[in-house]
Amino acid sequence: MKNIVVTDVPRVDERMLAELAEYGVATVHEAMGRSGLVGPIVQARQDGARIAGSAVTVLCWPGDNLMIHAAVEQCQPDDILVVTTVSESLDGSFGELFATALMHRGVRGIVTTGGVRDLVDLRAMGFPVWSGAQNAQGTVKATPGSVNVPITVGRVTIRPGDAIVADDDGVLCVPSNTIEAALIASRARVAKEAVSREAYLRGELSLDRNNLRGLLRDLGVDYLSAADHDARG
Amino acid sequence: MKNIVVTDVPRVDERMLAELAEYGVATVHEAMGRSGLVGPIVQARQDGARIAGSAVTVLCWPGDNLMIHAAVEQCQPDDILVVTTVSESLDGSFGELFATALMHRGVRGIVTTGGVRDLVDLRAMGFPVWSGAQNAQGTVKATPGSVNVPITVGRVTIRPGDAIVADDDGVLCVPSNTIEAALIASRARVAKEAVSREAYLRGELSLDRNNLRGLLRDLGVDYLSAADHDARG
Amino acid sequence: MKNIVVTDVPRVDERMLAELAEYGVATVHEAMGRSGLVGPIVQARQDGARIAGSAVTVLCWPGDNLMIHAAVEQCQPDDILVVTTVSESLDGSFGELFATALMHRGVRGIVTTGGVRDLVDLRAMGFPVWSGAQNAQGTVKATPGSVNVPITVGRVTIRPGDAIVADDDGVLCVPSNTIEAALIASRARVAKEAVSREAYLRGELSLDRNNLRGLLRDLGVDYLSAADHDARG
Amino acid sequence: MKNIVVTDVPRVDERMLAELAEYGVATVHEAMGRSGLVGPIVQARQDGARIAGSAVTVLCWPGDNLMIHAAVEQCQPDDILVVTTVSESLDGSFGELFATALMHRGVRGIVTTGGVRDLVDLRAMGFPVWSGAQNAQGTVKATPGSVNVPITVGRVTIRPGDAIVADDDGVLCVPSNTIEAALIASRARVAKEAVSREAYLRGELSLDRNNLRGLLRDLGVDYLSAADHDARG
Amino acid sequence: MKNIVVTDVPRVDERMLAELAEYGVATVHEAMGRSGLVGPIVQARQDGARIAGSAVTVLCWPGDNLMIHAAVEQCQPDDILVVTTVSESLDGSFGELFATALMHRGVRGIVTTGGVRDLVDLRAMGFPVWSGAQNAQGTVKATPGSVNVPITVGRVTIRPGDAIVADDDGVLCVPSNTIEAALIASRARVAKEAVSREAYLRGELSLDRNNLRGLLRDLGVDYLSAADHDARG
Amino acid sequence: MKNIVVTDVPRVDERMLAELAEYGVATVHEAMGRSGLVGPIVQARQDGARIAGSAVTVLCWPGDNLMIHAAVEQCQPDDILVVTTVSESLDGSFGELFATALMHRGVRGIVTTGGVRDLVDLRAMGFPVWSGAQNAQGTVKATPGSVNVPITVGRVTIRPGDAIVADDDGVLCVPSNTIEAALIASRARVAKEAVSREAYLRGELSLDRNNLRGLLRDLGVDYLSAADHDARG
Repeated sequence: MKNIVVTDVPRVDERMLAELAEYGVATVHEAMGRSGLVGPIVQARQDGARIAGSAVTVLCWPGDNLMIHAAVEQCQPDDILVVTTVSESLDGSFGELFATALMHRGVRGIVTTGGVRDLVDLRAMGFPVWSGAQNAQGTVKATPGSVNVPITVGRVTIRPGDAIVADDDGVLCVPSNTIEAALIASRARVAKEAVSREAYLRGELSLDRNNLRGLLRDLGVDYLSAADHDARG
Repeated sequence: MKNIVVTDVPRVDERMLAELAEYGVATVHEAMGRSGLVGPIVQARQDGARIAGSAVTVLCWPGDNLMIHAAVEQCQPDDILVVTTVSESLDGSFGELFATALMHRGVRGIVTTGGVRDLVDLRAMGFPVWSGAQNAQGTVKATPGSVNVPITVGRVTIRPGDAIVADDDGVLCVPSNTIEAALIASRARVAKEAVSREAYLRGELSLDRNNLRGLLRDLGVDYLSAADHDARG
Repeated sequence: MKNIVVTDVPRVDERMLAELAEYGVATVHEAMGRSGLVGPIVQARQDGARIAGSAVTVLCWPGDNLMIHAAVEQCQPDDILVVTTVSESLDGSFGELFATALMHRGVRGIVTTGGVRDLVDLRAMGFPVWSGAQNAQGTVKATPGSVNVPITVGRVTIRPGDAIVADDDGVLCVPSNTIEAALIASRARVAKEAVSREAYLRGELSLDRNNLRGLLRDLGVDYLSAADHDARG
Repeated sequence: MKNIVVTDVPRVDERMLAELAEYGVATVHEAMGRSGLVGPIVQARQDGARIAGSAVTVLCWPGDNLMIHAAVEQCQPDDILVVTTVSESLDGSFGELFATALMHRGVRGIVTTGGVRDLVDLRAMGFPVWSGAQNAQGTVKATPGSVNVPITVGRVTIRPGDAIVADDDGVLCVPSNTIEAALIASRARVAKEAVSREAYLRGELSLDRNNLRGLLRDLGVDYLSAADHDARG
Repeated sequence: MKNIVVTDVPRVDERMLAELAEYGVATVHEAMGRSGLVGPIVQARQDGARIAGSAVTVLCWPGDNLMIHAAVEQCQPDDILVVTTVSESLDGSFGELFATALMHRGVRGIVTTGGVRDLVDLRAMGFPVWSGAQNAQGTVKATPGSVNVPITVGRVTIRPGDAIVADDDGVLCVPSNTIEAALIASRARVAKEAVSREAYLRGELSLDRNNLRGLLRDLGVDYLSAADHDARG
Repeated sequence: MKNIVVTDVPRVDERMLAELAEYGVATVHEAMGRSGLVGPIVQARQDGARIAGSAVTVLCWPGDNLMIHAAVEQCQPDDILVVTTVSESLDGSFGELFATALMHRGVRGIVTTGGVRDLVDLRAMGFPVWSGAQNAQGTVKATPGSVNVPITVGRVTIRPGDAIVADDDGVLCVPSNTIEAALIASRARVAKEAVSREAYLRGELSLDRNNLRGLLRDLGVDYLSAADHDARG
């Protein structure tokens, strides 16, 4: 693999990002037909943050954050830095000084399969983090990698310029050519969920709203009272 | 296994539930002789919640939440929904719409070995969750399972109508025929701990309160000063 | 192994401890040349706590907390209790009554590879915890171990009288004979970071501050625009 | 929990055991409607062993094997010792001397969520093991537990006198009152699989044998050639 | 995501596959500049197997193997079936009957992030397996997925028609358009390693062959004798 | 930390090593009072190997094997190379070429918390491995570390010149100043076990040999027949 830094990658329209952030991970993920979710390899390091941004991707060597230094320069307002390593590593390759530099550039947060340190400061600064670990272990700047190449993060391939949505439910990648469709489907889903929510607040059952009673019957699920069940042993 | 939904399962008396919730997991677990604890497979997804309720149990297929839909109808006030899957699965089979329906019915919370999504909303609603993961990954409604059959959750078998106690220390199952005894023992333990707490606040040592100095001696534990220890090499 | 309780172990000067706590784990760890970090086996059980203290070490048998009882007596103001087991165990060997006794003695917190229970109470009391689990599972008092002997905790050997620093980034052991040097290096690092922070707040790049452009070139990292990159396929 | 040793528990008929061992875990598990499987917490420690026997169950304290000593006396020919601990523990509570005693009594093997040691000897003796770990770490004899009470092992509750089947695919519990039915269904399954195997050896497709083409169509799965797929982008 | 089965996907030339299998995973991975390795999520289930083949990819729903049935029909001689699930699942979705059908078609083996069962039979048949688990747990045929679409397996995206190499060191994906280059570089590496091996058999040191003594000096690594080291404390 | 290579470290007498290898990990570990065991972080990568040797220790940066190159030169006949990384890493930093060089020098095997590759070759060569992973992922030679300094491997600190014993039960460190005592205690244990083995082969019970019946009674363990147990409910 040739190591490269790709500059001037495309970005997602900021109104689209705002709308994705409004819907959140679970809704957009459903609207996309349930693709794009990074999965449990990365966890929210604060409660309640919800962001969307354009992916600037970084591929580092384990134990080394040289390419994060290179990536900062490539960041613009509304970007999200997405970092992984060539092989598994939980070292704390990112901390408060990087966050300071990124906030200066308008970056919205970081997603990394590695570790993050200075958590106290990052939370105080309001710079949200999704990471593989909280870990003070530092890194070196000795081995090259790449910026803005496609990277695999958990179950997903993320390309520079894809939209990233992140909240307490996980991290989602919306490929750049599917954002429009994801938004249309999300709007429909939000509208449908609002109607369902109203129904559930009135006491309606999802069994009835989704016509599941017949399905249960077809699948051979029997209803019997506890008394009958005990009697049958 | 025949798939069934058992209706009209017994419930725990609400005053008993209130008393269990007051004592919390660690105390009742000790009072029960240290049985009934689910263990680390399920973790609290908020800080500080403490609930007790009657178990409504759900056994789902992995990647499928059909039986949670069936279970909602079986829930009553003061119930806790307890969900597991036939084999390991961390998919987000439960979210805000289910919680809305369950709160309407007076359900106190959910315990699931699977994943939960819409965490931001669930915390805002005050619907407490103990789960195997926070995960936006959605599920289908295609494969049957059962409601209100005995299920294995971590280290414990939970039957419908057992009392569930849950807080930051974990999730505890109090079998329905042992609740009275658990409460009696819990009261005694709370009283004893209050006396111990007073003693510790005055500076008494548990070594003395529990007569452990003789035990240490019998087990051959020697005391020596750092100076003597260094001298002996 | 002979089981012993070593008394009168040395302590770290309290001004040194105060200064270590001010700098925090990530900074002191860097200042020490990146040694001494316990690693991910132990996690903070609250957000935002940051403490430093003298290590009182405890080696227990799995499922047994007898030696924690013995250790309480050895604790003094500004100590941190550091507990591990002879083999892997996540049982809840520590809870609120122990914390009550330790706070009476001025102990600052606990680090344990095992489990801790009564989390609700411990947070309310302000007694900070770094542990391997939150777990109500209780322990017995039947098998001996040692107090104030060297113990291995994650990636580190901790000796009684070493300084412990703990916050959201992890737990760090500063060997007693290196504290002075660690403080000197920490002061220098904090000063340097303050200058760097100022620079980053003005928009300077770490690429430039650290002269990394030449290194990237030497390592063969190429810059190319997204347009050029696409053109080359 | 009162600690007890239950003697004279029922056993499974030896012809039934022989037939279960002939079919193996995967076949009987399917025949039982996919219940009873312990799951990945326990792994085969040799390749190719396949046994069936009556469960003698043991519940130990972590780090303690006292109750295994008590359990040996309760074992008869064709039994399988099934061991777990009150809480998670991988200590090596079982080794060659126990196996020597058990082989003398005609016991067929051991299933334990804990660790096993003397692997070299156990393999040489032909005493098969399914365990949570290979681990030389020894245990004490200090804390009581129970023999021949129901225990939870992974996803399953095992009662004394249940049939255990174990091979490279895992460990299966066949509750004593379902063995007859499991055998009948296993015979049918083996016969059906033999016919299927013949068909597959001739090149028939499971798509056709199971009439799955219509299902795929109903579920909306489209077939398209690579050329067409590429053309559509 | 639209669910599809793509037919007539391209294959890798069989002489190329034979040469890749000869070199093995570690060598080709190095020759490719260390990309393409699936990583520890998938493990060899037998010792000593080494295969190369064209990838036929399968994306299943967790707990469901419907699409493996569809995939069999798409397989040709020298293919390797590569299976993953939409979300994490270790169920035993593959066993001896599938292997029988695949061997009839000349398929060389299976790589799956899920579980495999009938291990005894698969080893006897000589059908090699790399999987996430050995697990008898069966699956249903209820929810659709896709065949021959790009899938993420561990750290790698695999496309139908990519070359797969698998042995005890792991599983490697060689993208179809890089096979020629990978072979050229592998040949060079094998030749170079043969020369190195000769040197090491004669007692030469890699320190000297790779000119690393100067690097160690530049990096500040000091040599000192144990006696001097002890003297300095 | 200053990076150093310590030369001319002490070695263990070869007759002592031969005797340790004869006894194996489980026996020596017991004889040592159950200290020194590395634990489950490192696993045997072949069945049946049993070795003992003098530790040559290596501390590498994650993703980097530069210091293994330096360590080869420090190895002598009957040494065992013991490798760990500054932070968690499973990369394949060791393979067949290193083994070739080490076998030339008479080294007996390798223990590493990292990964090993070329497993097929290593097994064919008869060079035994205990490692954290089987992993083709290669490493760089860019960041310094140390050779023959004390390192923490799992639960143990290993110093150069300590004796290492390794087999299917795990890896044990016998500190250099305790080998004599360990051998004396091992001989006694082997003799005692031989007598016990004879007894168990005759059908004696460990309950009787160890006088455990009284202990069970003192601990309150009751014996009751299955019939009585069922009658009591």
